[in-house]
Amino acid sequence: MNFIVRKANQDDMSDVMSLIKELALFEKEPDEVEISQDELVKDGFGKKKSFKCFVAEFESKVVGMALFYPRYSTWKGNVLHLEDLIVTKKFRGKGIGYALFSEFIKYAYNKKVKRVQWVVLNWNDHAINFYKRNGGEILNDWRVTIMNKNSIKKFVKNESI
Amino acid sequence: MNFIVRKANQDDMSDVMSLIKELALFEKEPDEVEISQDELVKDGFGKKKSFKCFVAEFESKVVGMALFYPRYSTWKGNVLHLEDLIVTKKFRGKGIGYALFSEFIKYAYNKKVKRVQWVVLNWNDHAINFYKRNGGEILNDWRVTIMNKNSIKKFVKNESI
Repeated sequence: MNFIVRKANQDDMSDVMSLIKELALFEKEPDEVEISQDELVKDGFGKKKSFKCFVAEFESKVVGMALFYPRYSTWKGNVLHLEDLIVTKKFRGKGIGYALFSEFIKYAYNKKVKRVQWVVLNWNDHAINFYKRNGGEILNDWRVTIMNKNSIKKFVKNESI
Repeated sequence: MNFIVRKANQDDMSDVMSLIKELALFEKEPDEVEISQDELVKDGFGKKKSFKCFVAEFESKVVGMALFYPRYSTWKGNVLHLEDLIVTKKFRGKGIGYALFSEFIKYAYNKKVKRVQWVVLNWNDHAINFYKRNGGEILNDWRVTIMNKNSIKKFVKNESI
């Protein structure tokens, strides 16, 4: 396979948007995607950059991406979070996911961060095995907790949850 | 209880450091704290700020803190992550944790973020109940995955994991 991995530019955000939607469908949450292509362009390439992104390109078409940003650990200091690692279905099993992951880990190494992290669905055995094989450690006793916009508003307005 | 909640300043980082160590001990990982007070000062109040922090003060002594920073969701856009919410043992059960959490949620509301999030240990029933009561939703099917500095290096150097 003759693919390349490179830094994303703002013209890639249309393809990145499609990949985000594809992943949300796989994760059984297609209706949770509220972001728009314009927001991705603004947030990734505007004045205040909220993320960085690598894309995998095959025959001038984006077929995968790794999107990440800094986080802060009160144990380790500056760390990186891999928000999404996606390869479109047709192109899986060809080493593209590994190449994207590898580019991200090399970036982290060069930035000298003491940790990288991400989340994985507990039924996604394929991803879990991939991560374990490459040095990831699954922390089974932590649970992600979220509070959505509606609950934030209810809390602030003292409305019952 | 006559406590106040206010923005942290760099002189609070000594107390914040103690709170971080106290939480790590409670979480059964005391040896994982590698950060120093100087790093907290630099990362929170230097040129490039990696986090924001509120502290709770009682009789001129810091007895609790909430530390948070921005993250990016490819579903929601800009979100906030609450890294630590800590009240020192002697001062628990007095509403200080609620006051700190409340200040964080109000900050998120004013910033108009579409989501806030954090992680909780699955055996910490007290915290889980507190979060649920206040509008948090525990996502049971996601697992946190980390890769530490040593594994990052091994991966990049092609050494066996």
